[in-house]
Amino acid sequence: MPEVNIQDLVNSHVAGHTLQQPFYGDPDVFSVDRERVLDRLWHLAGHVSRVPAAGDYFLFRICGEEIIIVRGRDGDIHAHYNVCRHRGSRICSDSEGSKSALVCPYHAWTYNLDGSLRNARLMPEDFSTAGYGLHACRIKLLDGLIFVSLGDEPEELDGLDDACREYLSFHGIENAKIARRLDLPTGANWKLVVENFIECYHCTPSHPEYSSVHSELKLLAAGAGLGSGPDAACREYEKEIETWKAQVRALGHPLTEGEFDNGAGMVRMPIRDGFLTESRDGRPVSTLMGKFREYDGGITYIAFNYLNYLAASNDHAVLFRFTPISELLTDVEATWLVDADAQEGTDYDPERVSWVWDVTLGQDAIITENNQAGVLSGRYRPGPYSEQEAMNNYFTRWYLGCLRRL
Amino acid sequence: MPEVNIQDLVNSHVAGHTLQQPFYGDPDVFSVDRERVLDRLWHLAGHVSRVPAAGDYFLFRICGEEIIIVRGRDGDIHAHYNVCRHRGSRICSDSEGSKSALVCPYHAWTYNLDGSLRNARLMPEDFSTAGYGLHACRIKLLDGLIFVSLGDEPEELDGLDDACREYLSFHGIENAKIARRLDLPTGANWKLVVENFIECYHCTPSHPEYSSVHSELKLLAAGAGLGSGPDAACREYEKEIETWKAQVRALGHPLTEGEFDNGAGMVRMPIRDGFLTESRDGRPVSTLMGKFREYDGGITYIAFNYLNYLAASNDHAVLFRFTPISELLTDVEATWLVDADAQEGTDYDPERVSWVWDVTLGQDAIITENNQAGVLSGRYRPGPYSEQEAMNNYFTRWYLGCLRRL
Amino acid sequence: MPEVNIQDLVNSHVAGHTLQQPFYGDPDVFSVDRERVLDRLWHLAGHVSRVPAAGDYFLFRICGEEIIIVRGRDGDIHAHYNVCRHRGSRICSDSEGSKSALVCPYHAWTYNLDGSLRNARLMPEDFSTAGYGLHACRIKLLDGLIFVSLGDEPEELDGLDDACREYLSFHGIENAKIARRLDLPTGANWKLVVENFIECYHCTPSHPEYSSVHSELKLLAAGAGLGSGPDAACREYEKEIETWKAQVRALGHPLTEGEFDNGAGMVRMPIRDGFLTESRDGRPVSTLMGKFREYDGGITYIAFNYLNYLAASNDHAVLFRFTPISELLTDVEATWLVDADAQEGTDYDPERVSWVWDVTLGQDAIITENNQAGVLSGRYRPGPYSEQEAMNNYFTRWYLGCLRRL
Repeated sequence: MPEVNIQDLVNSHVAGHTLQQPFYGDPDVFSVDRERVLDRLWHLAGHVSRVPAAGDYFLFRICGEEIIIVRGRDGDIHAHYNVCRHRGSRICSDSEGSKSALVCPYHAWTYNLDGSLRNARLMPEDFSTAGYGLHACRIKLLDGLIFVSLGDEPEELDGLDDACREYLSFHGIENAKIARRLDLPTGANWKLVVENFIECYHCTPSHPEYSSVHSELKLLAAGAGLGSGPDAACREYEKEIETWKAQVRALGHPLTEGEFDNGAGMVRMPIRDGFLTESRDGRPVSTLMGKFREYDGGITYIAFNYLNYLAASNDHAVLFRFTPISELLTDVEATWLVDADAQEGTDYDPERVSWVWDVTLGQDAIITENNQAGVLSGRYRPGPYSEQEAMNNYFTRWYLGCLRRL
Repeated sequence: MPEVNIQDLVNSHVAGHTLQQPFYGDPDVFSVDRERVLDRLWHLAGHVSRVPAAGDYFLFRICGEEIIIVRGRDGDIHAHYNVCRHRGSRICSDSEGSKSALVCPYHAWTYNLDGSLRNARLMPEDFSTAGYGLHACRIKLLDGLIFVSLGDEPEELDGLDDACREYLSFHGIENAKIARRLDLPTGANWKLVVENFIECYHCTPSHPEYSSVHSELKLLAAGAGLGSGPDAACREYEKEIETWKAQVRALGHPLTEGEFDNGAGMVRMPIRDGFLTESRDGRPVSTLMGKFREYDGGITYIAFNYLNYLAASNDHAVLFRFTPISELLTDVEATWLVDADAQEGTDYDPERVSWVWDVTLGQDAIITENNQAGVLSGRYRPGPYSEQEAMNNYFTRWYLGCLRRL
Repeated sequence: MPEVNIQDLVNSHVAGHTLQQPFYGDPDVFSVDRERVLDRLWHLAGHVSRVPAAGDYFLFRICGEEIIIVRGRDGDIHAHYNVCRHRGSRICSDSEGSKSALVCPYHAWTYNLDGSLRNARLMPEDFSTAGYGLHACRIKLLDGLIFVSLGDEPEELDGLDDACREYLSFHGIENAKIARRLDLPTGANWKLVVENFIECYHCTPSHPEYSSVHSELKLLAAGAGLGSGPDAACREYEKEIETWKAQVRALGHPLTEGEFDNGAGMVRMPIRDGFLTESRDGRPVSTLMGKFREYDGGITYIAFNYLNYLAASNDHAVLFRFTPISELLTDVEATWLVDADAQEGTDYDPERVSWVWDVTLGQDAIITENNQAGVLSGRYRPGPYSEQEAMNNYFTRWYLGCLRRL
């Protein structure tokens, strides 16, 4: 079989079109993706409220690896590869739990929560525990959000963290708690999962529920962020939301917009007339979060990169992570946050909080796998993006750029 | 691992023996099979009665592809790759159904039943629907039978279609209807599935029911077509059926024999003394088909190529298709046809119509998978064919010839 | 993808450490393992009591092959590849049974139990049955134990068989019968399965039941054979068992120790104070075997090679075989033997006989698969063995030596 020549594929790309088939499932391309793209990113692993106390941990699975995210005795959160330094056994078997120390179940090598090796029985005299701490994974926190990177030099985006923080802080993300989590392993290449999320061209045919929650013009012009739709619609929409923006400013709520590399950006916009929050009927689904004292009916979007997002209403927020596992498998996780003091049953019902995105992400999993099946056909050829898929153009350009640079 | 050198393998073949192991399962050989053999054939996809009205469709799966076989508004039957020209999504998800247009469920690109693109929303100004019809698959009809080809230049067999038509027409195949369909995905290379079907050496040990329906001499001499058995038995058999042939001629029923390339051919012979049709007890299982006005007890065999067959009694017919999916998976489908006017329950019972081949094909699936398992052993070596496997000799010679030619 | 250079990997090994990742799961390495290591070994297939009468057979699966182990009319036990010489079909489908002849279910080629072809119908005139016996597998018997080898020149270990025989004979292995068999397909490379079995460093954390049956000092010093633990503990243990040895000598029971290549060896030692046999409470679980007339509380270990073992108490014995199937699958089988005259229900209860190793092997399957999962991580690096993993050092040295030699 002829091997895939990746640079030839990169160069054969036609602007405005989808990628060549090998980019959407070839295992060799996936290896290159890891090295040039995925290992350089900070990946959202979850919210700090999953590990409130020392010893609390959960496993984050990415690109065939398992990372133990654990709160140490020092209060810091650590990220360790789930691989014993003795003979390589998995140390944690359960997806989440609480441990006083990380003890390998095989030979009982015992690691401190910070990953250092505390004790290994019967080792030769010249053995020193100092050299055998768990392999560490890079980790950073951003107002309650845990990010990890598999690479040695993850790229920091100038200004993104600081800019985000204004929104994260106003929404009280750090002190939020998890109302619900949803895991949707999706049988598709990560790029198809991403491309599905960054355009709203499919909203009308595929997402009737989502489309009933957002205004028609918003879906068309800004369904995947400001500027994701046709130019004329964008101009019309920006004019239309001027009044809302003035009200928001009057309330003292933030409105800063930002655009960064890697698909990162942040923006606020109204949901639709009469909707206070992104819920089935627009009515509140929990108590106001963070610094909100009254509803402004807006939704805050933060893209940390092309794979990780936040969509925050005034009374709840959703974290989205699209985590590559292998060339044809991507883990999709949604985490719904509410105010830490909100009481389940009294203040919120997890089903009402999660309704819009629960039904939408379920539909997305099906259409994305359906997309992957067709893309694997020998007759698939790159096709042209519509005017409502502007972000897909940015994404393919960015992705191919990552592959071009050394 | 050393790669398979296919020309060396071809040249190392010993006449009268089975093929070398890589031909029965190596993925590289399967790629070559597609290019040099499978893509050049017309593959039986099904009977027209599956798509009686405009918009009726079914999916035909072959070699990893999905083909939409659909009746157009013009009455013609079309074959389209099930791949949207926009972003590659599958268009039809169900295996069969009816549609007024082919609408991609992802972004609602809408194709006419003839495959032309009717409408795509919000495309850039320079976009023309003309260039974005569904990829077409070659299709031809033969008296109610739908054939498709994946290649650009499928081989036409001089005279086969015309010669067949006499039989197909006399049996009324075009106006038949489907009494039952059976799908048996078989975990074996397509060549093992074919080789199992073209010899009756295994009939006695493996098919007691089939062997009780056909005469012993027929099984021996002509169990897989005239000349498939030992020479002496063939001569004896041809003599034995002279009387029957004379009766058939007297009735004005056709008897033309034919032999073509690709394993194609056609012949008629009696089932066994006292049997009117290929049923458990030889008694009718439906009403007479086509131009038959009385039973002649014959069975008509048409081989369209090595992978597609018809076996027609006077009152019903069976279509067989062996469709390669991957190097170790072959789709086996049987379709039982009866006269379009026959009434289920009154005139025929699908179980009685299908009994002989239902039980026989079930046995074949098991023995063929058992054959594949052994062939994958490192100790498998090509073995010698018996005198009752004459067709297997023709088949291997033809197959290796296809691989030799450029 | 860069291919694995096996000699580089061999040379990069650091003494006292586990192997590099590719040795624990790479398919190319597995091919080399077959050629240089596995095909040269005699593999324990089972006990003769599985095939007491002519025609009795069982299938032995190893390295993707199926071997028919069958008792012939001559009383000899034969080993044939389960591949028909005609078209390659499997001949025996059931894992065990009894046959008067080996008849291929496909075309009824009939082989004698010794593998010679008795009859093939309708073959061409120049065909001779003489050339078409079943492919034979090398086989040897050792006091009731059946060993086979896939290679042409399996290595005989000077003196091992003779030395073993003293123990096998004293324990009456040849005339034993099977009380129970346990099959545990384990999703791990064969080297991880072996390495788990040859160290008792994991006994304390992973095997509480096993650890309750054996003395603490025995587990530490000799849990995987004499000398498998730290030097000081070994010296202490050898001193401690002097008294027991004297008693054994006085009883006239054998005590010969031996050490050979390929990890082979033999030794006897006491179980623990007050334990007559390796059972939950140390009390007998069956009648005395072989030449034992009274209990000496000892356990006899024979390692035939790194993959096959016997552990014999005075009243029962356990055979262990670790049989590679593919690079990530190993078949683990335990066979519990008791005296042929012992009566189930009266003299022994299979559950009591098998309790210790049944629970222990179940735990081993889990920890070994857990080990394999971690070893497949990109962050796995060879780790240092403890002083209680002395045999693992010998094993890796032997294994790499096999790969070095031509």
